[in-house]
Amino acid sequence: MKARIVLAYSGGLETTVAIGWLAATHGAEIIAVTIDLGQGRELDELHERALAAGAVRCHVLDARDEFARDYILPSLQADALDQGRYPLVTPLGRPLIAKKLVEMARIERATAIAHGCVEPTDQARLERCVRALDPAIDVLAPARVWGFTRAEAIAYAETRGVPVPATVETPYRVDANLWGRTIAWSGSERPADEFRGERHLLKRPWGAAASQPAYVEMTFEQGVPVAVNGVPMSLTELIESLTTIAGAHGVGRLQTARYGRAGIDAGTICEAPAAVVLHLAHEELERFVSAPTLNRFERDVATGYADLVYSGEWFSPLRDALDASVRKVQEHVTGVIRLELRDGACHVVGRQSPLGLHDQSRESLDTTSRSAEIQGFRG
Amino acid sequence: MKARIVLAYSGGLETTVAIGWLAATHGAEIIAVTIDLGQGRELDELHERALAAGAVRCHVLDARDEFARDYILPSLQADALDQGRYPLVTPLGRPLIAKKLVEMARIERATAIAHGCVEPTDQARLERCVRALDPAIDVLAPARVWGFTRAEAIAYAETRGVPVPATVETPYRVDANLWGRTIAWSGSERPADEFRGERHLLKRPWGAAASQPAYVEMTFEQGVPVAVNGVPMSLTELIESLTTIAGAHGVGRLQTARYGRAGIDAGTICEAPAAVVLHLAHEELERFVSAPTLNRFERDVATGYADLVYSGEWFSPLRDALDASVRKVQEHVTGVIRLELRDGACHVVGRQSPLGLHDQSRESLDTTSRSAEIQGFRG
Amino acid sequence: MKARIVLAYSGGLETTVAIGWLAATHGAEIIAVTIDLGQGRELDELHERALAAGAVRCHVLDARDEFARDYILPSLQADALDQGRYPLVTPLGRPLIAKKLVEMARIERATAIAHGCVEPTDQARLERCVRALDPAIDVLAPARVWGFTRAEAIAYAETRGVPVPATVETPYRVDANLWGRTIAWSGSERPADEFRGERHLLKRPWGAAASQPAYVEMTFEQGVPVAVNGVPMSLTELIESLTTIAGAHGVGRLQTARYGRAGIDAGTICEAPAAVVLHLAHEELERFVSAPTLNRFERDVATGYADLVYSGEWFSPLRDALDASVRKVQEHVTGVIRLELRDGACHVVGRQSPLGLHDQSRESLDTTSRSAEIQGFRG
Amino acid sequence: MKARIVLAYSGGLETTVAIGWLAATHGAEIIAVTIDLGQGRELDELHERALAAGAVRCHVLDARDEFARDYILPSLQADALDQGRYPLVTPLGRPLIAKKLVEMARIERATAIAHGCVEPTDQARLERCVRALDPAIDVLAPARVWGFTRAEAIAYAETRGVPVPATVETPYRVDANLWGRTIAWSGSERPADEFRGERHLLKRPWGAAASQPAYVEMTFEQGVPVAVNGVPMSLTELIESLTTIAGAHGVGRLQTARYGRAGIDAGTICEAPAAVVLHLAHEELERFVSAPTLNRFERDVATGYADLVYSGEWFSPLRDALDASVRKVQEHVTGVIRLELRDGACHVVGRQSPLGLHDQSRESLDTTSRSAEIQGFRG
Repeated sequence: MKARIVLAYSGGLETTVAIGWLAATHGAEIIAVTIDLGQGRELDELHERALAAGAVRCHVLDARDEFARDYILPSLQADALDQGRYPLVTPLGRPLIAKKLVEMARIERATAIAHGCVEPTDQARLERCVRALDPAIDVLAPARVWGFTRAEAIAYAETRGVPVPATVETPYRVDANLWGRTIAWSGSERPADEFRGERHLLKRPWGAAASQPAYVEMTFEQGVPVAVNGVPMSLTELIESLTTIAGAHGVGRLQTARYGRAGIDAGTICEAPAAVVLHLAHEELERFVSAPTLNRFERDVATGYADLVYSGEWFSPLRDALDASVRKVQEHVTGVIRLELRDGACHVVGRQSPLGLHDQSRESLDTTSRSAEIQGFRG
Repeated sequence: MKARIVLAYSGGLETTVAIGWLAATHGAEIIAVTIDLGQGRELDELHERALAAGAVRCHVLDARDEFARDYILPSLQADALDQGRYPLVTPLGRPLIAKKLVEMARIERATAIAHGCVEPTDQARLERCVRALDPAIDVLAPARVWGFTRAEAIAYAETRGVPVPATVETPYRVDANLWGRTIAWSGSERPADEFRGERHLLKRPWGAAASQPAYVEMTFEQGVPVAVNGVPMSLTELIESLTTIAGAHGVGRLQTARYGRAGIDAGTICEAPAAVVLHLAHEELERFVSAPTLNRFERDVATGYADLVYSGEWFSPLRDALDASVRKVQEHVTGVIRLELRDGACHVVGRQSPLGLHDQSRESLDTTSRSAEIQGFRG
Repeated sequence: MKARIVLAYSGGLETTVAIGWLAATHGAEIIAVTIDLGQGRELDELHERALAAGAVRCHVLDARDEFARDYILPSLQADALDQGRYPLVTPLGRPLIAKKLVEMARIERATAIAHGCVEPTDQARLERCVRALDPAIDVLAPARVWGFTRAEAIAYAETRGVPVPATVETPYRVDANLWGRTIAWSGSERPADEFRGERHLLKRPWGAAASQPAYVEMTFEQGVPVAVNGVPMSLTELIESLTTIAGAHGVGRLQTARYGRAGIDAGTICEAPAAVVLHLAHEELERFVSAPTLNRFERDVATGYADLVYSGEWFSPLRDALDASVRKVQEHVTGVIRLELRDGACHVVGRQSPLGLHDQSRESLDTTSRSAEIQGFRG
Repeated sequence: MKARIVLAYSGGLETTVAIGWLAATHGAEIIAVTIDLGQGRELDELHERALAAGAVRCHVLDARDEFARDYILPSLQADALDQGRYPLVTPLGRPLIAKKLVEMARIERATAIAHGCVEPTDQARLERCVRALDPAIDVLAPARVWGFTRAEAIAYAETRGVPVPATVETPYRVDANLWGRTIAWSGSERPADEFRGERHLLKRPWGAAASQPAYVEMTFEQGVPVAVNGVPMSLTELIESLTTIAGAHGVGRLQTARYGRAGIDAGTICEAPAAVVLHLAHEELERFVSAPTLNRFERDVATGYADLVYSGEWFSPLRDALDASVRKVQEHVTGVIRLELRDGACHVVGRQSPLGLHDQSRESLDTTSRSAEIQGFRG
């Protein structure tokens, strides 16, 4: 029997070329797996493209609800932001991709997994997740090995008669999922002005946001966001809805230049409207119902959780331990946070929680003011 | 109906005098409550003494197993040591005393609780626990109010015909329970040499320990110490047994001069043989089965937990959150630690855990060396 | 000789009444001291008012530059924000007020200091600072003792023929200085809508900010902000300038409901445009030139520093230790941060530092991308 | 001109063989450099051995005082212990070795540095230090490349006529310097009982220590240990003296099994009598003169410092920042700590500091008890 390799297939140039390259180099059957984390591309046509490129099968998996429930939610509840500030968009998707690849490798009896991650930190993250789940599976990163330029990759495909996606040449590296979108570029090619253009999730240049402010009331029950402006929604719907609302007001676009573990990244735009709004609201509500000593512990947990996600230590006893304390704290995180969205800015303008009463029974509080707080919160 | 006050009754001079003083000052009925945390005194006679002093009732409650299970064990599992070094003997007893007093106040329909704590930090700790459990109950600290010297307290009792315990005048303040004993003294009265005498739990002067070393194997199952040298025991028995064994080798006597929250304490001897051995063994086993990032988090939790116990924040959402993560980590803390006890010193000389295998499935380890570790651990 | 009391005199109702009350109650001469931290009131007339109220002398001290240089700057460099988010406006002023009061008490040979702080946390903070500087000086808080309502205070003054400032009755408590303004109100009296009115430093309702965005380039040299848009300024000028520019764009208004150490505060508006812009710019530049392990330490220092300022532990070996490390780090914090100010929002849109080269010699970096970063930073 | 390689030469089998191997493989001249950190071997004969093995030169550098002053002392003052418990013996030597190698490479115009470190963590540590000092110098680790067993290394030397040291075959890996000695062995070869034998620095089996306890008074001036039992000594002399005294009482031998960054180490004995005594004494004195909030910060610094040393981040802005705060704190760390040394155990039995008075002027203290403390401290 021929060896089998499960390939995380995005439909882009590199992973399309990788199908033929891996088959030739490893003498293996390639099983393409496309995991829908809400990246919003047309995934239907990927199936055909993968087969045309030589894959023996192509599985398209809808993992959006699982992503929201088991990856986004715990990290939201932990207040895990990279450097205390940036939503973890790409890093949160990696462990779920790893999990799906390992599951599929077992079903398909494959002995190796291949992926198209380019950035070293990102490669290490994915590989660490796979290794934690199944140390016996090999992990291949074709792009790390072959050293093709974009043009060479296209040439490689053409000589083998493989149709490749006619993507425009771009200096950007985009990664998107339900939680947001990151657009990275390297230093020397940085045409900064284009970032004011239309290539963004927010669908508008910086500053062209809705002229009137919007007010959003986020309802949490035990740490879970359950309604927007009083309308109950599933978590996936709620994130999509907030992405639209907050995005229309220019909220959630962050520009960063990170000094990465392996040196500085040249620059990244992160667009994550729902993440920015939800993190702000959750942090505010959690602080509102927590004593200062608890709040300080929560902030330590948040720092540790963000480091863990960033470094790909998702499947670990450390996360089990952090999750246990985060879940316990969420029991009190019930209430409503009112936010004002205004051209790029998001501010808390009201807060309300019935669970203040809980704390009152444990620590002496000013009963009057807390009660007043519960009745009305336009503040 | 007359008001009722529940008094934490130790049987000593101050709390005996306090019965009459509280009754007179507050015009109330006094319910004495003596809580056995393993302090090892003759508690039977206290009942008579309390009634003779004017109490309308005296309840003697055996809370030793509850103390071991719900107070000592969680803090042991959290590796909570004051300043990272000293077992928390007195502070761990306070929340349980508070809980029993509040329960008894409800049963007796009392509106206030009184106690004999002398040191300000200790008073604040107990009162914080009571307030967290029931903010409606008043807390009285007669010794803080009356300002009696020892002689005045005796005189006060005599003029009222109350028999008081004929305790020898002493510059020491001793507090003892199942977990250990602390002997505090204030600076100006400090006859240091007497501390080499026989007044100690360890029942021998410094340096007069057993001449031959002993080896103890501590077995933990999911963070719970369950056997000594292979002999299964209840937690209470196990602590008593270790107190005897380790005490005989002079292990567990620590001398400290703490810069307290309210200024420096003049000096404290802490004798806690079982606590010292169990903390060392538990920490070692936990570290042995934890990855470095988890171990660092555990150390942060330990620091936070110790501060929490010290400041009397036991009944709080913060402890719930810390406990949740501690309990999760304990699932892996199974194994045996071998210790050498030798005139005052306790060293780890071997370690063994079947749960190394667990970690291997999540993070790549050197399989060979870990397996070897499991087979024999005389090291 | 009559006893003397030095009173921190704000010119408001309470401290004006306090002059007569303290003189009568303590049989003492009252020395009024007004310290200009940039609160922007008319301080000239205070001199007359204090004498009219019975003070034997009134000193008006301009401490603005000292406040900027020795209090604002170190905490800015430490990235010290309350709860990681809110500028420390009122708490930063307290140690300098304490220092000036102690100096004046020594000059005037006064044995006590009096102040008009109302909130318990704030009283404790000021008193802790005084005690650290001179434990022999008594601290009096008339407002804690007399229990006057506002009307009673006015009546008290009138019966003694003391002219009091005809301030409008207000449910607000305002504290202002060079670094910003806080407006606090208690729960039951909270007419939230008025906070959208004109009583603010920002001189405009929420949302009525300048319609066009502004771009600001902040230049730092070794951690000190030295120029705005390339124009060199003293620190005091620079803060005033940024307050105007950023305030005009609605930046720097934060609404919070803090769960205080002594229970929840009902609500606070903090208006600190310069502080918000400078903290964001400094944090960004510091992160830009720091390796991740250093950045993590800086964040721990920031948390500790904020707690220290909040709790009034300013004059302490702890601050000396934190300051030493903060100052060391600042040696690398040289560069320019470009910010976009837009109706309430402040975003980093560019960063530039010549000191990337320094780090390159110590840790391997991607030289190309860092150099590119230095040349142009519109990104 | 021929290329030149500077080799860290220990005189052992591997580095002796490496001289010829590097010369042959790289066609380079080999400059042997032996750095005396107090490892106590006969270093004189190494010179001849290196030349006989083919080195063109051999430099023997005495770096003991520099090691004590610039590496041991700062980490002692920072209370940096691995995992809060183990002295950092080997890791502290690496940065100084790196520094000397880089200096010598510049003098000799060498383009590469070679070393004989075997353990991956240890290799990474040394290489990180070299890279921080001079990223242009190549670092070679022959032992990582050649894959020789011990027998093969001897055979390789014999075929080239190189005399190699006739060391006994041993499963141990010993590293020694002024600060202590570590003896590591891997899991499968672990003849645990031999560790009770005579191969140790302490020159006696476990338990055969001096029968009478000793008392040692350690005097610190501003964080620097300056005298033992009142006798002033240089730091190097003091460490040697304490090694003898404490070693004679069996103090300072620790056994550990570390879960290394790259998996668990099979086992290590660390013998560091002076380090154990000095760390205990310094920590105790520092805590004695520090308020609790400062003490907590110190403990955070200690954790960060230990991680930094362990991971080879010595030459970094992070260490500069930590050192700055540590040095500031040391200004108060003056006093005497009295210790009891008794068969393997070291206990603090007295403490004394004139600088308590300093703190009293900054925070309210119980003056009486502190003064008493200063007069006599037999405790």
